[in-house]
Amino acid sequence: MPELRKDPIIDRWVIISTERAKRPSDLIVEKTSTRGGFCPLCPGNEDKTPSEIFAIREGNTAPDTAGWRLRVVPNKFPALISSGELNKRTEGIYDKMNGFGAHEVIIETPDHTATATTMMVEDFKNIIIAWRQRILAYGQDSRFRYISIFKNYGIVAGSTLEHPHSQLIALPVVPKRAVEELDGAQAYYSHRDRCVFCDIIDQEITDTRRIAAENPGFLAFEPFASRFPFETWIIPKAHAASFEQADEALIDELANMLSCVLKKINAALGSPPYNLMLHSSPFNTDVGAFYHWHIEITPRLTRVAGFEWGTGFYINPTPPEQAAQYLREAWIG
Amino acid sequence: MPELRKDPIIDRWVIISTERAKRPSDLIVEKTSTRGGFCPLCPGNEDKTPSEIFAIREGNTAPDTAGWRLRVVPNKFPALISSGELNKRTEGIYDKMNGFGAHEVIIETPDHTATATTMMVEDFKNIIIAWRQRILAYGQDSRFRYISIFKNYGIVAGSTLEHPHSQLIALPVVPKRAVEELDGAQAYYSHRDRCVFCDIIDQEITDTRRIAAENPGFLAFEPFASRFPFETWIIPKAHAASFEQADEALIDELANMLSCVLKKINAALGSPPYNLMLHSSPFNTDVGAFYHWHIEITPRLTRVAGFEWGTGFYINPTPPEQAAQYLREAWIG
Repeated sequence: MPELRKDPIIDRWVIISTERAKRPSDLIVEKTSTRGGFCPLCPGNEDKTPSEIFAIREGNTAPDTAGWRLRVVPNKFPALISSGELNKRTEGIYDKMNGFGAHEVIIETPDHTATATTMMVEDFKNIIIAWRQRILAYGQDSRFRYISIFKNYGIVAGSTLEHPHSQLIALPVVPKRAVEELDGAQAYYSHRDRCVFCDIIDQEITDTRRIAAENPGFLAFEPFASRFPFETWIIPKAHAASFEQADEALIDELANMLSCVLKKINAALGSPPYNLMLHSSPFNTDVGAFYHWHIEITPRLTRVAGFEWGTGFYINPTPPEQAAQYLREAWIG
Repeated sequence: MPELRKDPIIDRWVIISTERAKRPSDLIVEKTSTRGGFCPLCPGNEDKTPSEIFAIREGNTAPDTAGWRLRVVPNKFPALISSGELNKRTEGIYDKMNGFGAHEVIIETPDHTATATTMMVEDFKNIIIAWRQRILAYGQDSRFRYISIFKNYGIVAGSTLEHPHSQLIALPVVPKRAVEELDGAQAYYSHRDRCVFCDIIDQEITDTRRIAAENPGFLAFEPFASRFPFETWIIPKAHAASFEQADEALIDELANMLSCVLKKINAALGSPPYNLMLHSSPFNTDVGAFYHWHIEITPRLTRVAGFEWGTGFYINPTPPEQAAQYLREAWIG
């Protein structure tokens, strides 16, 4: 019998469906094929991207030349434009504003062929430092309300460039998904005077069945109401609303955990396409007591179709308890 | 400059981004290839599906034999099971219940190779009659709260069977997406004493730029805050909360409009993969004044990736005004 499970933060139901796991088309891992051709993100091609905003470099190499370990540049095809005003206005009953914002590409390594499996913990640390530095920079500008940090790996997950990279989009409004999480966490807090994420961490550590990995600073687990097979969250054990407040020691622990979890996902599933999303608090909001930052990683192994789009329900053919066991047992050398 | 637009019903922002339309990988129509092989939904194979629940048949042909124009059967791999009790319970801080519900397949035509382009208005009428009949049947059973009717066309849109079909999932809870729409419509109504959908219809008919097609009963238009290129809604002009209350005359008009819109989408975009979702009111709720049923059709031409999953924001590279013009001008013979 399938099980209906409710997400404890937002009112989203999922169907954990063992019956559907039997379908032959389920859990097919679409290979991330090598596309070849010219790569504008590779060392030596620094003039093919807009000028760098931030970099971690070896020695005294000059900006926009080779010699970098990590490089952040504006997206050449930005979703939002960082000049001009918001100019909020209406059109009859509709609301609109200018597409003000920012869109950056974090080039995670000079090695075009690197994957989470081959990257070192040091590489992950560089990525996390870059994310933090860029969020702190945008936090200085009151026109920005929220920063979305995400990574698309593989064509199926929406990646259009093969070279390892993540992205940042700075938004002038707090997006719907963040508002839902904040509202849900606030409602829980107002009833119980506790952070819902802290309660989840406590229960998962006690239960153990959904734990994928753990270190002193972080828990990696499969959520009780996972929408997708092998959906994995990485969350700091100590309560904290904002990722960018993480100190050096916590960044070390996160680099370690991110490396471990992505290597385990690659080992268990054969390097599947995935999306990674940082969920952190908006700027200038008083959510410190009830919000708790975390990272969500969702391998793309099932297709989202009319039922999911029409209802917001998800059908997950792999119980999170089983997925966690696969990940715990995945050997990563 | 891209534009940020807000959905007037739910607080969802989209980026209408002309800049991103230039990307070569945008708006690639993935072909629905013929997969061949044995088809359990074809005439003559009635014994390969569970017994039929409803059918539109020629003459006096017997159930579960050939001679049908349309056939409704239980899904052989159901997401939910229609026996047993809900058994609502907790697991620590989490809520769950048994996966009670129902899952049916509407086999839309005996012709395996039929598409919206080749199907007659009469075929669409049969489909709409079947949807209505099945919803009315579930409405008799107080254990069901909401019916999701949807169609996945093409592999990219999540279809696993090639034979033309739509699906029905009967749910014991009102899903998140429906709650959001109901809450948004109710909030609008409580402020203005008007249905937000009726106001949208009025504005779109006055504006005309986003209209894709129109007949006496229905408006087909591209929403102001379209999430996807060529997202198209079909909505009855007269206020009505529940699809299943549609009378014979309105069903004729809807068959005509559904046929017209899908043929236009196929003509304009080369038969793209798409999802179709019926949005109608839950059972046994008092939403008649402020809710308004409609059909949402979303061609799958862009990939949903980390940014969309992480924020609930969408990036739409085709302004709905442009998409509507393409559809208005699409020649469908």
